[in-house]
Parts: sequence; C-alpha cells; structure tokens
Amino acid sequence: MMTNNNSDNQYENESLNDEYYMRRAIELAALGRFTTSPNPNVGCVIVKEGDIVGEGYHHHAGGPHAEVNALKMAGDKAKGATAYVTLEPCSHFGKTPPCADALINAGVKRVVAAMQDPNPQVAGRGLHKLLSAGIDVSHGVLMQEAEKLNIGFFKRMRTGFPYIQLKLAASLDGKTALASGESQWITSKASRRDVQNFRAQASAILTTSETVLADDPSMNVRWDELSDEIKAIYPKETLRQPIRIVTDSQNRVTENHKITQIEGECWLARTKSQSNEWQGEVSEILLPTNGKNSGVDLVLLMMQLGRRNINSVWVESGAHFAGALLEAGLVDELIIYIAPKILGNDARGLFALSPLSSLSEAPEFTVDSLQQIGSDIRVCLKPRY
Amino acid sequence: MMTNNNSDNQYENESLNDEYYMRRAIELAALGRFTTSPNPNVGCVIVKEGDIVGEGYHHHAGGPHAEVNALKMAGDKAKGATAYVTLEPCSHFGKTPPCADALINAGVKRVVAAMQDPNPQVAGRGLHKLLSAGIDVSHGVLMQEAEKLNIGFFKRMRTGFPYIQLKLAASLDGKTALASGESQWITSKASRRDVQNFRAQASAILTTSETVLADDPSMNVRWDELSDEIKAIYPKETLRQPIRIVTDSQNRVTENHKITQIEGECWLARTKSQSNEWQGEVSEILLPTNGKNSGVDLVLLMMQLGRRNINSVWVESGAHFAGALLEAGLVDELIIYIAPKILGNDARGLFALSPLSSLSEAPEFTVDSLQQIGSDIRVCLKPRY
Repeated sequence: MMTNNNSDNQYENESLNDEYYMRRAIELAALGRFTTSPNPNVGCVIVKEGDIVGEGYHHHAGGPHAEVNALKMAGDKAKGATAYVTLEPCSHFGKTPPCADALINAGVKRVVAAMQDPNPQVAGRGLHKLLSAGIDVSHGVLMQEAEKLNIGFFKRMRTGFPYIQLKLAASLDGKTALASGESQWITSKASRRDVQNFRAQASAILTTSETVLADDPSMNVRWDELSDEIKAIYPKETLRQPIRIVTDSQNRVTENHKITQIEGECWLARTKSQSNEWQGEVSEILLPTNGKNSGVDLVLLMMQLGRRNINSVWVESGAHFAGALLEAGLVDELIIYIAPKILGNDARGLFALSPLSSLSEAPEFTVDSLQQIGSDIRVCLKPRY
Repeated sequence: MMTNNNSDNQYENESLNDEYYMRRAIELAALGRFTTSPNPNVGCVIVKEGDIVGEGYHHHAGGPHAEVNALKMAGDKAKGATAYVTLEPCSHFGKTPPCADALINAGVKRVVAAMQDPNPQVAGRGLHKLLSAGIDVSHGVLMQEAEKLNIGFFKRMRTGFPYIQLKLAASLDGKTALASGESQWITSKASRRDVQNFRAQASAILTTSETVLADDPSMNVRWDELSDEIKAIYPKETLRQPIRIVTDSQNRVTENHKITQIEGECWLARTKSQSNEWQGEVSEILLPTNGKNSGVDLVLLMMQLGRRNINSVWVESGAHFAGALLEAGLVDELIIYIAPKILGNDARGLFALSPLSSLSEAPEFTVDSLQQIGSDIRVCLKPRY
C-alpha cells in the first residue's frame, strides 16, 4: 500500500482500496445466486496489511454465512484485519449463530459493510453490536452494486412482496401465436437457453393452468441447457429447482401434468381445496377469488408468496395473465424476447388489457437493457408506475 | 513511407496504405449522401509521396465529380501521384466530361478504385481506359465499405428497382394506435428526429392516400430537426427535399393536403388521371391496378420509380400497405421504432397479412442493428427472402 504525508491522498487511497476489496466481495456474493434462496447473497473478504487473507460467500440456507467461511480461511490472520462484507453482518440466531459475534471473537479491527440489512431482524443491530465491541465500523461502500445482488430479498424485506419478473416472447409485431394457436418455438434456441439462466436464479417460477393445459410445460431448470459460464460456477450436484407455482382456480391441474411430476416443489394456487389428491412435493395455497372473474386474487397470492420466503418470481404465462399482472401493478420487470418474424394482425397478441380510452393511459416502461440473443432481441424494462 | 528490402513487408505496407487512403476517400464520399441523388456518392484522394495533395467528393448531380474536385485541389502535384476513388471513374460524357480522361490528362501514375461501377454505361470501361493510357490500375480495396455508400444506386443499376426501406413505429406489443385510431406521437421526439436523418438521405419518401387522409402529414425533411452532427456537414442552403410519392388509386389526394403544397416534387401514383387539377411540382404516375384490390400495382410502381432515377425509397405507411409491400417481396430493410409502452390486444396492429396457416410461413428477418434512441428502441432488419 502507498503511504504518504498528504492526508487527503491517504483518505482517497483508503477509499479506493475499500472499493477494490468490496468489489471482490460482491463477485464472491454473486457466486451464490443460484442456491441461496430464500437467503440473501453475501460475500466477505478479510484483508490484513493489504493482502487478502480470507474469502467466503454464502452458498445455501442452513450453510455457513459468508463471514464464517472467510474467517475460517483467514484463521489467526483475522486478528487485527479488516472485514469487507456486502451486507451488514447478522446479529441474531437463525439457522446459524450471529456473524457479528464471529467477527468480534476473531479479533477483527475494522468492518466495512456495503449496506445495512433491511431484514427487520437485523436492521442496524449487527453494526451496533460491532461498534459496541470497539470495532471500527463503516458502511455505504458500493451500495448500489450491493443492492443489485439481492433485488428480490430486499424487496421482500421492505414490502413483504417478492420481486416479480414477467417473461414474454413475441414476434416483431407483438404476436405470440398464430390464430390457430400454433406457438411453440417462436423464439430461437439461444433465447430459450437464456430463459434457463433467469429461471435458475429465481426463487419460484409462476405460470397458469391455461398454460399448463395448453402446453404441458415442465417449468424447471435443466442444467444441461444453462450457459457454459454458469455451468462453470454452478456444479450439477448443487442444482436447486425453483418452486413451481401454478394459478389454478378451477382445479384443472392434475397428477398427469409434468409440472406436478418432476423433481422439486410445486404449489397450486387455488380457490378451493382438492388436497387429498396430492402426494410428495405438490401442495396447495388457498386464496380468495378476485372480484373480476373467478381467478385467484393476484395481490393476495404475491403476499402469500412473500410470507413463504419467496424472494423473486419468474412468470411465464399467456396474454391474459400478463395483462392482469400489469393492471394490478405487480410487475417489477418485463423481459421480452423478440423473434425477428412477422405474424400479422390476425395472430394472437401479447397483452390482454382493458381497452384504453386514451394513449396517456398506456402502461409505460423504461428500457433497462437491450441485447441480441442469438437471432432474437432481448429487452429488459422497468415499469414507470 | 517506410522502405525496406523485404518485399513481403513492402507489399503489406502498400496494401495498408491503400486502405488508409481509401478510408479517407470513403469518408469524403459520405459527405455527399444528402445531396447526390440520383447520382452515387463518390470520394477521391490524391496522394503524392505519402502526402494527401488533393481531396474531393461529388456533391450534387450536375456538379463536378469527386475526381475533378480532388484534381483541382492537387493542381500540378497530381503528376505522378496515386488517385484513390471509391468508385470506378466514369468513361462517358454525362452532365460532365469523363473522369478517366481528367485523370489521364493530369498525369496520374496510379489509380486505385474501391470497386467497379455497376452502371451499364461504365462497368469496367473507365478502368480499361486508364489501363490503355498506361496507368497502373487496381480495384477491390475496401469494397464492402464502398458498397454501403451507395446501396440504393447499386441496387437500381443492377436490378432496375430502388432500395426500399420500410419505417414503422409501434408499442412493445406491436401496436400502432388505439382502437379509436389515436396514434400521434406513439414514439418519442428523439425517434422522430432520427426519422428525419433517414428521410434526408432517401431519394424519395413514399406514403399512401390512407395516411394522407388520416394524418395530413408533410413527409418532408425539416432541417431544424436533423441531428447536430448532420447539420454540421449539411448546410441549410443545400437542403434537398426527397421526392414525395403517394399511392392514390382512388384520386383522393387534393390540393388541400399539405403533401401537395409544400416545397419539393410530389408524385401521385394513380390508376386514372386527373392531371388538369395540378400545378407546380405535383405530377402523376399512371399505373395499372393490382389484381387483389383496386390499389396501385406495387411492383410496377417500384419499376417506374427505378426508371425515374429513384435510388432509394423511404416508406412511411399503415399496416395494410406495410403488409402488401412485405407480401410482394419488395422490402429491402425494415426500420422499427419501438416505444416502451403496452397498448393491449384491442389496439391496432403493425402488419395486415393474409392469415398464415403455419409458423414456417411467417416472414423472417435478421437483425442488422439494435439501438436505444431516446426512450425508444430502434431495430433495423433485413428480410430473409
């Protein structure tokens, strides 16, 4: 490390170093993004005299937290060191003991957290515990990047609702299927693989009984179809299946549908029970109907999913469900795969909305990213509510 | 210039130098892209002992060619020099004398052309004339880039048809207007300015009487709305209005419509004459009707436009005309501005096509470019016929 007598420069160097090590901690945290649900992604780096002596990240709920993994690697070198953590260390006994205690016991001199934990069980108590033990504590380093690591977890902690991503696929003229219903493989293989990468990071995948009855989809993560970059950091043995959720107000989904048969939990969101029929990993969530048609109340469904520790929901559905989610203000992000084809005005459209009486009523979005995926285009958008 | 005894390196250096000077000639040629129609864009650089001693480009039909402008600047220094030209020098008397003769008379030692001129009046004769005069002649340097300079002119020379760009604007779900017809300003101001940049480079702008009756558009180039980059190289005094063409098989366009009133030529493509009504810059093109409805035959229209020296046509129309052009195989490029809004399935669609019986019949495209324009998305596509 550079040393000099100019205190301004010294401060600047320290702040640059803090960002450097925090960036590494964020990289580590991201390695857990396929497996930590319902827990947040957290990374930790222990630095002694400019050298990284310990690194760790949280891998899965019930397993050790990032700090514990990093302290284990650092061993005795943690004494007098600085710990960089992407999220405030926890102060409570969950499935594992509090990380704040572990840092104190290891003799760490300084703790830099990217941000406070909005989890009401922590919310500043972790940092306070460290301060009380005489540790030099700061937070707010690369906070924006750290927010992005856990967009779903943080939304759930702050609002009770999961982060909802609506995936759609259409032609250039916004069509999803021919009038006849023919729709399979509108987009390319590259786009379908890209969808697998998103599914693999979601806590849950949500679809409807309409889609299940029409296409009998699996709605699972198929490790072989993940991108090579992801396969390299996500071994097949650790594959986690997101919970599959199906809105099924008329109890039309049966044990003959793939979605109820394959590995992983499947929750049927229904308005009346038929639970005697189900075995294994299939279960029901009972909900009131909405006022409009006899479908499941979507706002109450999302609240229920939040209570059941679902951080993020990846939705793949048809035009009616997409329109209903949008009209209920439940969509946090829209991911549209556009195939460079034209199906014409007779084909089936993307969004069933109540007719608009003026253009100013049209739901508007901002483009978050724009990318070619194979021969298709992928647009990610955030609604302007 | 480097000299050494290794003949391979020498060859490589010469070839790199050729590309360097040709790239400059291409830059110069592009400066004419708003004004040369119906002529091609051509640039020329004269190089003597490694120094550029003359530069020129073709500005407008009837004005001096690129070679003549560059030779004028070079003066006596042209003797023994190398001339780089983005297109084979002409060998015939048009509005100006042949450039091949000008190069010979100036004592140029070597001529490098990016490509031969597909114009049947030239087509190798220019290069042959230079060779016969003892000049060292080569061609094929940066040929692909040179092709792009004159995509419309070359298509017309090779096929008789103009290059046809179809511009569309829609919401994310492929809608152009509410069911009520409300449609003005679906896209942002930035997109509408971007359209001006395209219009300014087209030989002609084509629309339909349906669009004229619905919106009474001007379909002209408004210098103030061009981008600053373009304004900097395209002074207001030299503004050229592309010819406005309206398909009007039912003679519904009148002298009360803006498109017939404002500065610049306006051609009405009709099936029966009503010419007594027109004065000034408005005229008619008479065409047979197509077999399907009583509209103008679009293939014959495009052939007529080619014969009238229209290199490129920029089309702005509604869903029926867009569908008809596509079904006739006439679209060379699709430019879609996508506004990040959702209008819903009840709104009006982008393409009226004959119903498809299978997805494999859907017209397919390849994405040529993808860009954010203000808050919108612009996708340029080429059809896979």
